Amino acid sequence: MKPSISNHKLLALMKNNHVTILDVRGQEEFNRGHIFGAINIPVDELQTKHINVSNDKVIVTYCGKGGSRSEKAAKILLENGKNALWLEGGYLDWPFFSPNRIPTEEPMIFHQLSEKESSSYTYLLADPITREAIIIDPVLETTQRDLNLIKELDLNLLYILETHIHADHITGSSELKKRTGAKSAVSKKAGVCCADLELEENQEIKFGRYTLKVLETPGHTDESLSFLCENMIFTGDSLMIRGTGRTDFQNGSPDVLYDSIHKKIFSLPDDTKIYPAHDYKGMLSSTVLCEKEFNPRVGSGKTKDEFIKIMKDLKLADPKNIHEAIPANLACGQTISQRIS
Amino acid sequence: MKPSISNHKLLALMKNNHVTILDVRGQEEFNRGHIFGAINIPVDELQTKHINVSNDKVIVTYCGKGGSRSEKAAKILLENGKNALWLEGGYLDWPFFSPNRIPTEEPMIFHQLSEKESSSYTYLLADPITREAIIIDPVLETTQRDLNLIKELDLNLLYILETHIHADHITGSSELKKRTGAKSAVSKKAGVCCADLELEENQEIKFGRYTLKVLETPGHTDESLSFLCENMIFTGDSLMIRGTGRTDFQNGSPDVLYDSIHKKIFSLPDDTKIYPAHDYKGMLSSTVLCEKEFNPRVGSGKTKDEFIKIMKDLKLADPKNIHEAIPANLACGQTISQRIS
Repeated sequence: MKPSISNHKLLALMKNNHVTILDVRGQEEFNRGHIFGAINIPVDELQTKHINVSNDKVIVTYCGKGGSRSEKAAKILLENGKNALWLEGGYLDWPFFSPNRIPTEEPMIFHQLSEKESSSYTYLLADPITREAIIIDPVLETTQRDLNLIKELDLNLLYILETHIHADHITGSSELKKRTGAKSAVSKKAGVCCADLELEENQEIKFGRYTLKVLETPGHTDESLSFLCENMIFTGDSLMIRGTGRTDFQNGSPDVLYDSIHKKIFSLPDDTKIYPAHDYKGMLSSTVLCEKEFNPRVGSGKTKDEFIKIMKDLKLADPKNIHEAIPANLACGQTISQRIS
Repeated sequence: MKPSISNHKLLALMKNNHVTILDVRGQEEFNRGHIFGAINIPVDELQTKHINVSNDKVIVTYCGKGGSRSEKAAKILLENGKNALWLEGGYLDWPFFSPNRIPTEEPMIFHQLSEKESSSYTYLLADPITREAIIIDPVLETTQRDLNLIKELDLNLLYILETHIHADHITGSSELKKRTGAKSAVSKKAGVCCADLELEENQEIKFGRYTLKVLETPGHTDESLSFLCENMIFTGDSLMIRGTGRTDFQNGSPDVLYDSIHKKIFSLPDDTKIYPAHDYKGMLSSTVLCEKEFNPRVGSGKTKDEFIKIMKDLKLADPKNIHEAIPANLACGQTISQRIS
């Protein structure tokens, strides 16, 4: 049997998450561009390094053009009892590579979506190869739109994540879960017994080759989370564009929120993109740099004491749906009438 | 005098648009990544090729590491009476280059913005180095938000572009022009005498190192334009996400719109991103591939006859602001009361 594999067949293995991809070129070549998700062990180090791969996964090795270093590497692995193949054509033939743009992996599938009534944003993220997807902060009213998009894009929704227990709209979590089989996930601190997953600091959520990291950012509410994925952070109502979430109900605290923003969000690289749960002026995204510079509440050199004073002086009315939304969201989006029917 | 230049000084020249950047490496090296906006003439061809550069621009040459090929190239140019310098450190030292991502030019500044009342989208595009910017389809009500963003980002707004004469909201063009000195631009076919620029098929609008190309896409209205820039097309009300603009007023024609969409938009690469002037379901963008596949009116194999029947059967009410918006937009966003005051 020929111990090599075509692009086409490797993609099929990747879709089923049945493969570990091993780049056996030198580190410098790897750094200039590589198959997204691959690990790098130069062929010369292969004998000495232990490769931690579960036995139900095949290892596919590749080099620049395919057939010299990758074939040698596959042979070494086979001799060590691993299930290994080498990639025909190597990195140069990889379909998501083009000479003009290195690396040109097909980018992540990413959709920001808005709900007009509550000025809410929902985010759909997916791996274009495995089609595994997650959704952040879906809204009950736009469930059908979200389902249509998931179906059109042929995605497999794995998780429905909430940044916090929303007070202004009802989550689409329960309805989406019913229609897709995805798992719902909220902060452990929310004490929501209907959630499949309870999220904690530094927990990792995987979809395809991507990993989303959970950051606890309390202050708007005490169970508020932010989610970090690639160079994007989904900040819920913790940090908003040129604003912040309010801190006057649901155990909110300006003191705690200031620290969450400064220690967890403003410490990220300046070009990290910020995607909040709402915007009332029609802004869609920002960056860490822009909020550090221009956020009138918590950026532009404002001290914690100044922030606390600003927040105490706001004197906002309650969101109009608060008495319906919070109990429903504590039940993953099921309203009381649904729960007693 | 040392005939070389630092990164820092080259950036300053770029900001003032005072420089032509010449990559003197081989074509293959150039194709793997280069300074955005540079032209490629390998040093060996420099003697034979005529370089068309205005005399008030300096030429900066660069090669991989700086100092060998680029120095030789600058010498040849100087001997030919050109004003030339070579870049110290070459491409490897260019600050927007990193070994992990090639090329990693700082990406275009791009903001999609929304106006809730009319579900309109406004787009702000800018070159991060020269800070020259354009805005597409601004809305009168959100002028201050747009001005704030332009000021915060330290942008120099050159043009205010309209995809068409809107019937559902008043353009922010006149107000933005007054406050920034930018030039307003609409289709020549609109017959709008207050516009500074009348746009026609294939016309190019330049901002910094970027070029936006005008495509005439009539059918929603007869002066409707789409704007193509990099891998994005701004389709106005011609092609919308899973929909199209209506064709029952302002000289609209489903026959003409079908051809505009199929010949001008669907002929673009499948991964071209589509940014419309509106969306009523909270979708923000699409791609040529998705609309060809899923647009229920004009994609998914629909024939022109089927499209014409769909559009004739819609029987929509007029937009509520049509009698105020169209006259105002024909006056670049000035209402009658402003014009007679």
